[in-house]
Amino acid sequence: MQQGGTMKALVFHGPRDIRCEDYPDPSLDFDHSVILQVSHCSICGSDLHIYHGDKIGKTDYSAGVEPFCVGHEFIGVVVAAGKEVHRFAVGDHVIAAGGSGCGECSACLSRVGRCSRSTAFGLSTRLQGGQAEFAQVPNADLTLMKIPEGISFDQAILLTDALATAHFGVSRANIQPGSNTAIVGLGPIGLLGIELAFARGAATVFAIDPVETRRQHAISLGAVALHPDEARDQIREITKGAACDSIFEASGARAAIGLVPSLARHGATASFIGLPQGDTAIPMRDIIYRNLTVRAGIANVVAQWAELVPLLQSGRVKGDGIFTHRMTLADGAEGYRMFDAREEGVMKIMFEVGR
Amino acid sequence: MQQGGTMKALVFHGPRDIRCEDYPDPSLDFDHSVILQVSHCSICGSDLHIYHGDKIGKTDYSAGVEPFCVGHEFIGVVVAAGKEVHRFAVGDHVIAAGGSGCGECSACLSRVGRCSRSTAFGLSTRLQGGQAEFAQVPNADLTLMKIPEGISFDQAILLTDALATAHFGVSRANIQPGSNTAIVGLGPIGLLGIELAFARGAATVFAIDPVETRRQHAISLGAVALHPDEARDQIREITKGAACDSIFEASGARAAIGLVPSLARHGATASFIGLPQGDTAIPMRDIIYRNLTVRAGIANVVAQWAELVPLLQSGRVKGDGIFTHRMTLADGAEGYRMFDAREEGVMKIMFEVGR
Amino acid sequence: MQQGGTMKALVFHGPRDIRCEDYPDPSLDFDHSVILQVSHCSICGSDLHIYHGDKIGKTDYSAGVEPFCVGHEFIGVVVAAGKEVHRFAVGDHVIAAGGSGCGECSACLSRVGRCSRSTAFGLSTRLQGGQAEFAQVPNADLTLMKIPEGISFDQAILLTDALATAHFGVSRANIQPGSNTAIVGLGPIGLLGIELAFARGAATVFAIDPVETRRQHAISLGAVALHPDEARDQIREITKGAACDSIFEASGARAAIGLVPSLARHGATASFIGLPQGDTAIPMRDIIYRNLTVRAGIANVVAQWAELVPLLQSGRVKGDGIFTHRMTLADGAEGYRMFDAREEGVMKIMFEVGR
Amino acid sequence: MQQGGTMKALVFHGPRDIRCEDYPDPSLDFDHSVILQVSHCSICGSDLHIYHGDKIGKTDYSAGVEPFCVGHEFIGVVVAAGKEVHRFAVGDHVIAAGGSGCGECSACLSRVGRCSRSTAFGLSTRLQGGQAEFAQVPNADLTLMKIPEGISFDQAILLTDALATAHFGVSRANIQPGSNTAIVGLGPIGLLGIELAFARGAATVFAIDPVETRRQHAISLGAVALHPDEARDQIREITKGAACDSIFEASGARAAIGLVPSLARHGATASFIGLPQGDTAIPMRDIIYRNLTVRAGIANVVAQWAELVPLLQSGRVKGDGIFTHRMTLADGAEGYRMFDAREEGVMKIMFEVGR
Repeated sequence: MQQGGTMKALVFHGPRDIRCEDYPDPSLDFDHSVILQVSHCSICGSDLHIYHGDKIGKTDYSAGVEPFCVGHEFIGVVVAAGKEVHRFAVGDHVIAAGGSGCGECSACLSRVGRCSRSTAFGLSTRLQGGQAEFAQVPNADLTLMKIPEGISFDQAILLTDALATAHFGVSRANIQPGSNTAIVGLGPIGLLGIELAFARGAATVFAIDPVETRRQHAISLGAVALHPDEARDQIREITKGAACDSIFEASGARAAIGLVPSLARHGATASFIGLPQGDTAIPMRDIIYRNLTVRAGIANVVAQWAELVPLLQSGRVKGDGIFTHRMTLADGAEGYRMFDAREEGVMKIMFEVGR
Repeated sequence: MQQGGTMKALVFHGPRDIRCEDYPDPSLDFDHSVILQVSHCSICGSDLHIYHGDKIGKTDYSAGVEPFCVGHEFIGVVVAAGKEVHRFAVGDHVIAAGGSGCGECSACLSRVGRCSRSTAFGLSTRLQGGQAEFAQVPNADLTLMKIPEGISFDQAILLTDALATAHFGVSRANIQPGSNTAIVGLGPIGLLGIELAFARGAATVFAIDPVETRRQHAISLGAVALHPDEARDQIREITKGAACDSIFEASGARAAIGLVPSLARHGATASFIGLPQGDTAIPMRDIIYRNLTVRAGIANVVAQWAELVPLLQSGRVKGDGIFTHRMTLADGAEGYRMFDAREEGVMKIMFEVGR
Repeated sequence: MQQGGTMKALVFHGPRDIRCEDYPDPSLDFDHSVILQVSHCSICGSDLHIYHGDKIGKTDYSAGVEPFCVGHEFIGVVVAAGKEVHRFAVGDHVIAAGGSGCGECSACLSRVGRCSRSTAFGLSTRLQGGQAEFAQVPNADLTLMKIPEGISFDQAILLTDALATAHFGVSRANIQPGSNTAIVGLGPIGLLGIELAFARGAATVFAIDPVETRRQHAISLGAVALHPDEARDQIREITKGAACDSIFEASGARAAIGLVPSLARHGATASFIGLPQGDTAIPMRDIIYRNLTVRAGIANVVAQWAELVPLLQSGRVKGDGIFTHRMTLADGAEGYRMFDAREEGVMKIMFEVGR
Repeated sequence: MQQGGTMKALVFHGPRDIRCEDYPDPSLDFDHSVILQVSHCSICGSDLHIYHGDKIGKTDYSAGVEPFCVGHEFIGVVVAAGKEVHRFAVGDHVIAAGGSGCGECSACLSRVGRCSRSTAFGLSTRLQGGQAEFAQVPNADLTLMKIPEGISFDQAILLTDALATAHFGVSRANIQPGSNTAIVGLGPIGLLGIELAFARGAATVFAIDPVETRRQHAISLGAVALHPDEARDQIREITKGAACDSIFEASGARAAIGLVPSLARHGATASFIGLPQGDTAIPMRDIIYRNLTVRAGIANVVAQWAELVPLLQSGRVKGDGIFTHRMTLADGAEGYRMFDAREEGVMKIMFEVGR
């Protein structure tokens, strides 16, 4: 990276138009920032909202927006650090939390809760993304972690978002040792949720998805895999009517959300992390007559790391097999196309940047 | 009460047709039952569902149903006890939980959770109500409590349902010492909720209802009273944007339920106990972007008593002023009419039976 | 069993004098009792307090006491049931909790906490033990459980005490997913604790005992095994100074109790279940400067079963290899001698009764 | 304050020799420091350890030590701020937490737990105390809070230590709504604990101290006051044998610590905050047979503020009557003497500095 130089980056130009092209190198805009040379990055399901030209908050991605670098899942090596950065130095290989908080509020300082002004990387030119050769990370002391000993690069990228989101959702499902847990939706987050549910003592994990290969993956992790159309009845039968103590909904799909109450025992907890489609709602009758606790939310990534790192280091959680495809940035457009098409066998795509 | 005799009772004949009339005395149908001579009973908001001829579960009260004694809030003196009743004897003045469980499941035996086969008193001839001179209480050992020392009759009746339901709801709202709590709906349960929220350490309780006299009652209990139309904005202003940590919705009204998310801070807990009107639903977006925990449910009355009794005995919770009207059973039809009409100044009506 | 007949039983006559001999059959003394034909029973470490003639509570076993059947760990088949027994019938193969409560207090009724008047089986003639061909179990509805589907006889006997005690202790050690746990003392309860700590998400379990074979057993369960003399330093080194979040002390030995604080990180939780030797005490300075939570207690066996059964059924917890010796009642005296001598390779001894 | 000037300060010269004298002004040693002009400060019970020439950790105050400013309870106005101080500016009237952490560890950054390298103010020349006209506060952003709206100066000083310590101890005693709580030792921390226990829902607070005036103060706060010699028996009688659910020991005296287990119900929690005398220990038998949870520790002051501030602002907790004496720094030697002598009517002494 040179002052005023350019780099290769995946840039959003409009719906279904993400291109690998030359883009200005990031600059060190704040004393609390670092510049990373990205080593690996990956596509998240939520990147598809941009790719599709959806409206997120107040931004309508189908309208003309200034082209920007996409991507919030990335790891890399520090190549420059502002003078107020105390915890990291040039040469450190670090993991970026998927977004950056304001750095001043109590949520940021305490690393508990989620900064109300936090922004994900790669949503606009305001905070450029990390599917690029270089990326600026503001508030570095609060946002980064050195790759811990014993953590692979694959695991490190999963810590930027997918594994943290899965952990957040599973930790809010009140899984007790010996309990029955259902996981609805077996994308990367749902599959990682299986390992995390077992790590919390679930006796049985029911893994629910319409796609056969995803159910096979779930079975290899020890889950009882079920098709959504049969999930309710089979769970009643297998549990002799006891149903599920904890349910983790990882898809955000309307049908999946609707399925959740029917899987719950009286007094169960259901935790949702998928961004819901449109106006999906949960009927109060479903909650009150089953005496449910319902939680939904978006993870504070940094807050999940303390529990996740030792679970990975000890091998209690592995995250194997999530990355099904490895590409270079030059293949970015094709990567997005494949991922969006949900082609058979595509679970998650990683870009190895320095290659 | 004599074998085969009759008693005075409030009997449901059809929508808006509850009459005080002669009705057969209850018999001791089970070895685990007792017969109570009712001393006091009261009308609950949920009795109005029957009065209105609503449909509750599978029963349509607008259709012709066999006349039955109504009422699930009552206390009385044991006048007969089956031979498997160990904890109570003739002469004990006792409080009945508003319903009776199966007596065999783990929820009944452990007094935790709620029996899936539990039935409220006064829903049909299957388990007659207690707005009558006498009532049978099955599973007496699991369903009754002697009126504890220092508890008034008014408080004892509140323990049958309203105070237990308020306690259940408030206890699930995750009120921490120093927190801001909102209570939506200032009927008896909402007003009792104010005292209970303070007992859990709430620094400020925002009490929300459109009715001026109810807001005045709330103010007398130390709450900050607000009209629903202004609640959101005023809470934001008073709390300087912090909003509420805990919200207790005690009405079940569609508009009240809809108000709840707008009062919540990020990460708040909202607890609902009102039976919801029709198909009221809570949008997933409201939950996920505010990172809420939402709970709804129906109280296991017995399970609430251990905490409530000492709160009443110590004067931490009083329940003063909830009963605005005292009548005899002979005035039952008029009592229901007034209560249903929400006449000015009518909060809750008690029948003093033996008078 | 015949009215007024006799059976074979292990009978305590005095210190180190437990004999297999003829003893009167138990009678059905209460309507809430059942008589079991014992199929399997086992020796618990706490049986040695009797064997040694220690003083337990107010009973001095070195003094002359009326001979009685010993043993509180047993399972068997119901051969007679009192008329107030509702949950069990003749022919049911059941597991007895190691003791019987009063059946009337809130701890008994709620199965939470521990009855203050509970008595273990096999401490005196008041409640005879189950190292015998037959045993009476009072308050059967509250004390027994049918052997659940998928549970082996070995596991069923462990549920009478050892596994329940291990679960109680581990559940009170506040093990969070990803945490470091130490277990001090690798008898049956400590070894079972390893499996249970992993089921709660422990990333690393440090298993500490001076006996090499026990450490080998712990290693086979995935633990890091350490000698007590080196435990503190090795844990500091392995955890890079972080030390342990949770500690489970399962021996009751003075030296083991003294070791615990040195293994703890600031703010850790230490849970003790071993009956302490003499006047062992824990210095307040050790607690306050490390900001510890210290818990000790005796398990309510019944209360542990809800979580344990599915953990066993799902294979998350196995309890393999705990029983190292299988004998008949006729070998009882030799069994006690070997167990007391802590002979090499003796972990736990089972008596197969019907053989 | 002028560069190289002097100020009035209370300076430790040896056991029972604390003098008000000229002392060099503090300098701004770190970019993260501020200098406060102290407005109010106070003597804490733990200051007497220094006054007595005790040994604390590795420092023996009876040996000759370099004279230093004492005092860790102080508030004041910022008169200078280092360039890395972001949250405070000259003119802010602020509350200092009683000590300063390292500012870099996870406990400091998260404000949860307690920094293992934290140092109290006023223990040595390393971090001078605040019983002086000026004081330097390192890591100001992590250690200070502006005096919140509605908080009096008296309350602000209590937030520096006594109220925070009381809150920490009470919050760890597991007080549930409706429970019986005992508080042993009615110095400032014990008396503040009464208000805090009620704020958490205690139905009854038993306040135990041998000094009559302190018991009278407790009674005025709503507690049931007892002499230690009679506490056990009277609590058993008043609670009909139920005893206490939660116990907060606020003195550190050997006799008080020994009293605690005898006040506890089975399964109770006991929280200790007093620095224990010498080798005081708690017998394991007392813990195990009562199934106790025992906690002891030293408060992270900053972590207590979020709950305490709204409790004070709402008037749920007042802290009235704790300061019995108000003096100037010039009276410092006499203040220490009176406080140490536990003269009748001396509860806590404040120095109004600017007067």
